[in-house]
Amino acid sequence: MPRDKDQTQHRIVEAAYYLFYQRGFTRVGVEEIAARAGITKRTLYAHFRSKDDLLAAALRYYGELDLERLKVIGRGLPARPQAMVDGFFAKLLDWADRPRWSGSGFTRLVLELADLPGHPARAIAARAKTATELWLADLLGNGGLKMSRERAREVMLLMEGAMVLMLIHGDRGYGKVAARAAKRLLR
Amino acid sequence: MPRDKDQTQHRIVEAAYYLFYQRGFTRVGVEEIAARAGITKRTLYAHFRSKDDLLAAALRYYGELDLERLKVIGRGLPARPQAMVDGFFAKLLDWADRPRWSGSGFTRLVLELADLPGHPARAIAARAKTATELWLADLLGNGGLKMSRERAREVMLLMEGAMVLMLIHGDRGYGKVAARAAKRLLR
Repeated sequence: MPRDKDQTQHRIVEAAYYLFYQRGFTRVGVEEIAARAGITKRTLYAHFRSKDDLLAAALRYYGELDLERLKVIGRGLPARPQAMVDGFFAKLLDWADRPRWSGSGFTRLVLELADLPGHPARAIAARAKTATELWLADLLGNGGLKMSRERAREVMLLMEGAMVLMLIHGDRGYGKVAARAAKRLLR
Repeated sequence: MPRDKDQTQHRIVEAAYYLFYQRGFTRVGVEEIAARAGITKRTLYAHFRSKDDLLAAALRYYGELDLERLKVIGRGLPARPQAMVDGFFAKLLDWADRPRWSGSGFTRLVLELADLPGHPARAIAARAKTATELWLADLLGNGGLKMSRERAREVMLLMEGAMVLMLIHGDRGYGKVAARAAKRLLR
């Protein structure tokens, strides 16, 4: 693929990712994505056949960013499971403190498209969540924890619950309770 | 208010509630709500000034239904906290097994409108979640559990996480792990 085409495509995906994350899938129009990417709608459709295709590309991009971010976070976390989980939730709380934080883009997308289980974006979101869960299980297992798969699933449940309730109440206290609960479950 | 007006208003709220729950706020049009309620758009606007007002009314209705449902569930649950939480998650799993189940309408709405923290519907959703949390804390406290407020918050976190992950993966196993984790946290 010529380099220019590559760069344009990447600019479109970044614009779509930014706007979908801010306002969800339905309320963002293709015109607006094209405008943000600095191209015409016609050029956008030369790269992506539909808004659905663009969503799939944006989610794959978001999934890659997410895994990169997790790898970096993982290298900075202590090995001992209790301390690891503590550090993990501290990162979540830092993230939730950013202006315009809106939780997990994957979770929000699935809830927005809850009536469309067959939508291709749903499978991408599910795979990304599984990747996070396996990443957690690896860290916990490497730290010497038994039943690390089930423990990782519990951390996922508490993390998803914390994101939802921090958004609903605008109160990071829910993240702190989730961190304490996760640590008690590792005992 | 004359009885006819009352009945029409209720029919509109029920139609809005049904459609918003199925497909979220943005993708449902006022025309569609009017059609489902068997009235014209003009009649709808005689009862509700805007789609936002209608959403607020639908959420208040959903909140009342929710509290009624919780009261009924509460009467059927055992008093002992461990058994109570077990029964509570069993109800959640039954609910998640229904065709077209889409999790909590409040949670989905807040995530859909995550960029609009000042939207009136957000405050209604937050109040409804607080009511559920206090209902849980009362049941746990009446069953003799100490620190019932923090324990109730943990059950909320696991329940919200379970709803999200059951939707994402289409796998009720997440609800079962959440139930086991909640019971361990009560020990």
